[in-house]
Amino acid sequence: MNASLPPETQLRATREGAVLTLSLDGPQTRNSISPPVYRALQAQVIAAGEDPGVRAIVLNGLHGFFSSGGNIHNLKASAQSTLAEVSANPDALNAMILALRACPTPIIAAVEGGAAGAGLSLALACDMIVAAEGAKFVVAYVKVGLAPDGGVTHFLTDALPRQMVAEMCLTGDPVTADRLHALGLVNAVVPEGDALAEAQTRAARLAAGAAQAQSVIKHEINAAPHNDLATHLVLEARGINSARFGLEAAEGLAAFLEKRKPDFVGKGRP
Amino acid sequence: MNASLPPETQLRATREGAVLTLSLDGPQTRNSISPPVYRALQAQVIAAGEDPGVRAIVLNGLHGFFSSGGNIHNLKASAQSTLAEVSANPDALNAMILALRACPTPIIAAVEGGAAGAGLSLALACDMIVAAEGAKFVVAYVKVGLAPDGGVTHFLTDALPRQMVAEMCLTGDPVTADRLHALGLVNAVVPEGDALAEAQTRAARLAAGAAQAQSVIKHEINAAPHNDLATHLVLEARGINSARFGLEAAEGLAAFLEKRKPDFVGKGRP
Amino acid sequence: MNASLPPETQLRATREGAVLTLSLDGPQTRNSISPPVYRALQAQVIAAGEDPGVRAIVLNGLHGFFSSGGNIHNLKASAQSTLAEVSANPDALNAMILALRACPTPIIAAVEGGAAGAGLSLALACDMIVAAEGAKFVVAYVKVGLAPDGGVTHFLTDALPRQMVAEMCLTGDPVTADRLHALGLVNAVVPEGDALAEAQTRAARLAAGAAQAQSVIKHEINAAPHNDLATHLVLEARGINSARFGLEAAEGLAAFLEKRKPDFVGKGRP
Repeated sequence: MNASLPPETQLRATREGAVLTLSLDGPQTRNSISPPVYRALQAQVIAAGEDPGVRAIVLNGLHGFFSSGGNIHNLKASAQSTLAEVSANPDALNAMILALRACPTPIIAAVEGGAAGAGLSLALACDMIVAAEGAKFVVAYVKVGLAPDGGVTHFLTDALPRQMVAEMCLTGDPVTADRLHALGLVNAVVPEGDALAEAQTRAARLAAGAAQAQSVIKHEINAAPHNDLATHLVLEARGINSARFGLEAAEGLAAFLEKRKPDFVGKGRP
Repeated sequence: MNASLPPETQLRATREGAVLTLSLDGPQTRNSISPPVYRALQAQVIAAGEDPGVRAIVLNGLHGFFSSGGNIHNLKASAQSTLAEVSANPDALNAMILALRACPTPIIAAVEGGAAGAGLSLALACDMIVAAEGAKFVVAYVKVGLAPDGGVTHFLTDALPRQMVAEMCLTGDPVTADRLHALGLVNAVVPEGDALAEAQTRAARLAAGAAQAQSVIKHEINAAPHNDLATHLVLEARGINSARFGLEAAEGLAAFLEKRKPDFVGKGRP
Repeated sequence: MNASLPPETQLRATREGAVLTLSLDGPQTRNSISPPVYRALQAQVIAAGEDPGVRAIVLNGLHGFFSSGGNIHNLKASAQSTLAEVSANPDALNAMILALRACPTPIIAAVEGGAAGAGLSLALACDMIVAAEGAKFVVAYVKVGLAPDGGVTHFLTDALPRQMVAEMCLTGDPVTADRLHALGLVNAVVPEGDALAEAQTRAARLAAGAAQAQSVIKHEINAAPHNDLATHLVLEARGINSARFGLEAAEGLAAFLEKRKPDFVGKGRP
């Protein structure tokens, strides 16, 4: 460890109503991420998923950028480490990524400025992405002689044609928020500076929704790429048959027939 | 059963040349669908697939809408049912969805107005979608506290980036025909009122095509997401080697070399 | 064999720096391809993948067209062959396709004019596609009563919504480079006549990149569709941990911190 290295990025948590906002705060490194952040974010996401008071999560970066990914200083220093020491890094990264996907609560990434390297993996592990105009999405790794990690080749291959994935990964060149919005990977592009507010507005709407049904949906979307159609139809049938007898469906169907807004809070996951 | 409930949607079948049009007719419920429709549609599709005279199928909804999906009155009543009774619903729905995909004959959905809930699953189970301007595609379920069924999370995950699928499923918000056309999920957007005619025109062109080759293609497209490349190459090799000795290829290759239009009718599947 | 048949397409190889250009040359058949070409291309690609001096490959067709696919004269003649004779065709085709994907070196297809039938499979087997304005992408097979081969139903299903794949395969109709660029399957559209030059420029940039990291990336992208997320995260972790101790990462990270251009040549795969 070198005393002159910039300080580690911190994770800030704020709560407004049922929306939890988790913010990366590393002003000197454009919110670079490393094992301490991985572990903090994983813990926050697991706790939020178990907290009935948290009904939607927003993840963003402070200082006008989402995250630059792994800290280059750390990465360079790691070439002096043992393989065992180095392995702790992807283990913690992967545990965080899997926790984001396994979390029953919807998670929206608010991407201001850009997301690069493991920062892009992190954004893609969220359920939805709101981006500011001009934000850049950069696989980056190959530019410094590294192969990608954190699931980015998996997430991109799931979402985009292989030709575009190959270009992003083999060149490391940036892609704009507008281009990814046109392709359906970015959910909304908003004026610079507005990504967090837009993500929080969307999160508040999700937080007023049917939380139990949303958690079933996240599970189904996670499972879909690996199920054949017949298997997935059975999974969906189980999901709706279970939901059908729940308090959320009772409220939702009654509200629909009574032409009023449903009140789902407290009727879903305990 | 409540005598005051709106009548069940009926399935109308009409035939013009080799094109079979199946139309949902439920004027009071925007063509809501339920087990009687599922079974009728499944039976029609299976029979059409075995009828050499039917070479293309169009599925639409009358009264300016494709289908609103499950009837909300029925869904609400179902909370009073036993689980066994309720399970009959997805079983019939799933059998219909699988029949559409297994049918060797091309099927085009003509979507006027919109497709919601299980109505969207139904449209997505067809091979192609022609939509009218302004038509809305709505996963909907979560709005009434339910999880999706009929394969919609599978079909959307296959077709679109996860971020967009998550938004459609977690919010239940509508997406326009134009947006889905830009993403390649909707094959054509036509002026309001023209979806059926356009789908029938396209179906007539398919009906003049090589029916046996089309059935092999449908099988290959169904299998592709679950095969690795090497396995799929072998499947395709079998398909073309079998086609090569058939009457359709003899006609198609001869017509190409003689610079005339091929006549495939009667040369394919018996 | 018929003496009046047009001559077989030849494969031309040219080298400029670390970029190998492979060109189909069959002026009378718009570069139709058949087992001799399959075998020649497979051999070139395997040799290039083992040659540290070749760091990027461009594949194009001469005479203003990429490739028209299987030769219709040969296909027609093949109906007189035994099944054993006919099977040699897809075996050689498939071996070539798999060699393109397995090649550790990036491969860019430069598509001028169009790519049809097995010619489209060939373009899609490359990692990236640069196309000229007006170039047409045509599955074609069904038009002559044949089912597709060479992986085209697999490649398209991986890249595009099923509705669009179904249309392309069931109708055999052409799709423009512009449309496929909008969908992310074509990486760039350039003025007519410029596809080869643009592909070579891009290849030269890739050739200056980190070759070892690129080969890991190609492997990861090939594997991604068949791995669940947890499995793929482990694959990526292995890739980056191995890269981290290599000469490419040492050079790339040092160059980044020293704000200079990295020199990766000779630091990657032997």
